[in-house]
Amino acid sequence: MSYDALVAGFTRYYRYQHLAQIVAWDQAAMMPPKGNDARGAAMAELAVLMHETLTKLDFTGVAETPSVREMRRQWRTATLLPAALVEKKSLAGTHCEHAWRTQRKANDWKGFLANWRPVVSCAREEAALLADATGLAKYDALLDKFEPGMTSAIIEPMFASLQRWLPALVDEVLAKQAREVVIEPVGPFPVAAQRALGIEIMQLLGFDFEGGRLDVSTHPFCGGVAEDVRITTRYREDDFVQAMMGIVHETGHARYEQRLPRDLVHLPIGQPRSMGMHESQSLSFEMQLGRSEVFLRLVAPLVAKHLGDQPAFAPENLARIYTRVKRGYIRVDADELTYPLHVVLRFEIERALIEGELEPEDVPAMWDEKMRDYLGLDTRGNYADGCLQDIHWTDGAFGYFPSYTLGAMYAAQCFAAIRARHPDLDARIERGDLSEIFAWLDANIWSQASQYETTDLIARATGGPLSADHFEQHLRRRYALS
Amino acid sequence: MSYDALVAGFTRYYRYQHLAQIVAWDQAAMMPPKGNDARGAAMAELAVLMHETLTKLDFTGVAETPSVREMRRQWRTATLLPAALVEKKSLAGTHCEHAWRTQRKANDWKGFLANWRPVVSCAREEAALLADATGLAKYDALLDKFEPGMTSAIIEPMFASLQRWLPALVDEVLAKQAREVVIEPVGPFPVAAQRALGIEIMQLLGFDFEGGRLDVSTHPFCGGVAEDVRITTRYREDDFVQAMMGIVHETGHARYEQRLPRDLVHLPIGQPRSMGMHESQSLSFEMQLGRSEVFLRLVAPLVAKHLGDQPAFAPENLARIYTRVKRGYIRVDADELTYPLHVVLRFEIERALIEGELEPEDVPAMWDEKMRDYLGLDTRGNYADGCLQDIHWTDGAFGYFPSYTLGAMYAAQCFAAIRARHPDLDARIERGDLSEIFAWLDANIWSQASQYETTDLIARATGGPLSADHFEQHLRRRYALS
Repeated sequence: MSYDALVAGFTRYYRYQHLAQIVAWDQAAMMPPKGNDARGAAMAELAVLMHETLTKLDFTGVAETPSVREMRRQWRTATLLPAALVEKKSLAGTHCEHAWRTQRKANDWKGFLANWRPVVSCAREEAALLADATGLAKYDALLDKFEPGMTSAIIEPMFASLQRWLPALVDEVLAKQAREVVIEPVGPFPVAAQRALGIEIMQLLGFDFEGGRLDVSTHPFCGGVAEDVRITTRYREDDFVQAMMGIVHETGHARYEQRLPRDLVHLPIGQPRSMGMHESQSLSFEMQLGRSEVFLRLVAPLVAKHLGDQPAFAPENLARIYTRVKRGYIRVDADELTYPLHVVLRFEIERALIEGELEPEDVPAMWDEKMRDYLGLDTRGNYADGCLQDIHWTDGAFGYFPSYTLGAMYAAQCFAAIRARHPDLDARIERGDLSEIFAWLDANIWSQASQYETTDLIARATGGPLSADHFEQHLRRRYALS
Repeated sequence: MSYDALVAGFTRYYRYQHLAQIVAWDQAAMMPPKGNDARGAAMAELAVLMHETLTKLDFTGVAETPSVREMRRQWRTATLLPAALVEKKSLAGTHCEHAWRTQRKANDWKGFLANWRPVVSCAREEAALLADATGLAKYDALLDKFEPGMTSAIIEPMFASLQRWLPALVDEVLAKQAREVVIEPVGPFPVAAQRALGIEIMQLLGFDFEGGRLDVSTHPFCGGVAEDVRITTRYREDDFVQAMMGIVHETGHARYEQRLPRDLVHLPIGQPRSMGMHESQSLSFEMQLGRSEVFLRLVAPLVAKHLGDQPAFAPENLARIYTRVKRGYIRVDADELTYPLHVVLRFEIERALIEGELEPEDVPAMWDEKMRDYLGLDTRGNYADGCLQDIHWTDGAFGYFPSYTLGAMYAAQCFAAIRARHPDLDARIERGDLSEIFAWLDANIWSQASQYETTDLIARATGGPLSADHFEQHLRRRYALS
């Protein structure tokens, strides 16, 4: 097959993906409940078609270029597995996930385990096949689907570093914060006002409303396509804190999409680098920028404008609200400081599971042990708030969890580079001049898409390989100083 | 190919159509402007795929049943034309329609004519090919795409009947209405209040919000899929009259879709009978029910509840507003009484055009003559409000216009049947008991889908073939009595 034929195939694939993305957004943000079965059937039909579109491609005789490298990666992920395994895995995952929704509420580990064994077994089969084809270790072969080029050998020393200093830092920060007074915001905060506030913050953050929208869904996400980015949030009238920062987070994802190179975005080389790099952009916006006191100084007048002024909206108080640390059972509710410990725990368990060093039935024991060690929490017998809490494992998405903390580390490293270049960054942020941040991210990350491997991308952007040090410095600076 | 294989093919086609419908709705109701090019490319790719899906089917050796009859009809419409003609027609139509958007404003008939000749020429080619394959006359072959089984020979006597009595009836009603006092509603009417009113009326009309939505678009329509019906309207804060009745109209379309037989809706036999029958359901809701004084008595308190009470909202006054007759140039702004004359004029012109009895350059002269004869209006030199006003001809949708008035006649005939069965219908409507109307439409039209040919469907439902008489009686009863 010629390169041009591959381009034609991937262009068609991109258009099908457009349909898939828009109807998936619609399903989450617009669709009434009775539309679900027909939607599911239509999406499944499209998934089959997309798979066929890729399997038809043939790379023999095509000269290796960065574009072909990225094409081959997408093609391999989609086509390497035998159809029988894909189907078996999908059925096991759907079945397990569906039952999990009630089993979690009932704390029913035993019931879950019966459905989960086949899911783990399929994932191990998948990992073995991908490992054979790529020469990677089994877990690394799954990791590579989400974070190309990333291996356990790179992650382990970074995560080990976190484990060394982070639990002690959490202790220190909790002691410090115990002496602080935080004024709670007093609601209600009408949805329309929260939405107007969110839109004004998105404008401040450079979201292009000519090429995207803000809507509502149960689980906030950034969807749509690069040309038409759809972010969502969810509102509670008694609390605006989550929704507002959720919008900042999704806007980070959105700007990455909106600034991908438009002439290449239909090809893999023009698409986002990885899940971790995508998360690094949302976390750049949320953690590096959004929860900083200088940014909250900039935003505080907007909060007061839309929600009515009150003592809790003083910038220093908003900063305390947005940096409050609390040890908890639930990853998705975790703060910036404890979140990585939830991820390290999951990484260690899922790696052992896929490598065959741990059996599914032994997961709760390991979970209990690590929760005690890393977060000082007792989870024994509490499966619902323990190993049953995440959706990721229920349908076999092993290898995804590290992306969250890799993203946080990429973000810290990028912002360290921006700060090195602009020592006056905080002053700029406080007066609303975010242009240098956007220009740097645009030039170094967004416009680069998948032109380089992740290690090259981050080295070109920041001058060195990924390291946990910038993340540590960031956390110490924000939480332990002053 | 076996019948089961045909079912599998049409099931796949139905799923693709689901995707096409949802992204088309999104394009009209949700999509930001910069998404348009990528959306267009994705939709075009899907259209190619859908066409291929149908062309792959093969009917040899399949026993003829009603289901196969309807399958064959969809298949033939999609596959009979050579690809070269389809492409030529699509290009000519897109080009002509695009330029028309400025040419209409500029009253530029000459510029339009140059682009329109190839559109007419393609339509004539299409008509000739379809006529050859079906044995129908050329214009009838186009008509058959929208209104299967309908021919000029059936339409002409009915339209001739309209021409006999309708212009005089218009005179009479105009004279009568000149003596009536109508109180104008005083705005503004906030969009949120209009929307809440619309939703309450939709509930009254039995719209299932678990399987559909109400949104906003520039051109109101009923889209989505049977399992998830999406209707739209547009609001003006200075006038609620159009938006409110537009919602009633689209709800008629929606209920037809929502009540199609769910176990057959993925096959042609389970889908709406025709464009005219679809329009008959929206016009049953809008014209038979919605603009009746008894229905407006039922709705008046809701109008006052949402928009604040005022003298104009007295039921008798609302009824006068919703039955006001005015001779005008523009079809889409026409009232119930003059609308059919706009349609008859277009039917006569487009039939002559396709049969080769009229050339494109002679359309304005015929338009002027018929507008004078039917509506007493002088349109000479005013192309913008004359033959350039509709989008339908710009991209070659000849054969569609009769559906509007056929729909009005089907609706009048259905309601005559309902009235015959329930002599107390008006009293029922006024007290909000619409159940007998819905039960009749459900049993006789909605649930019947495409099981019978239209002539059989209407005869089974109403006891006789379609006739203009019920429509005449309806119009005389509403406009000329009292």
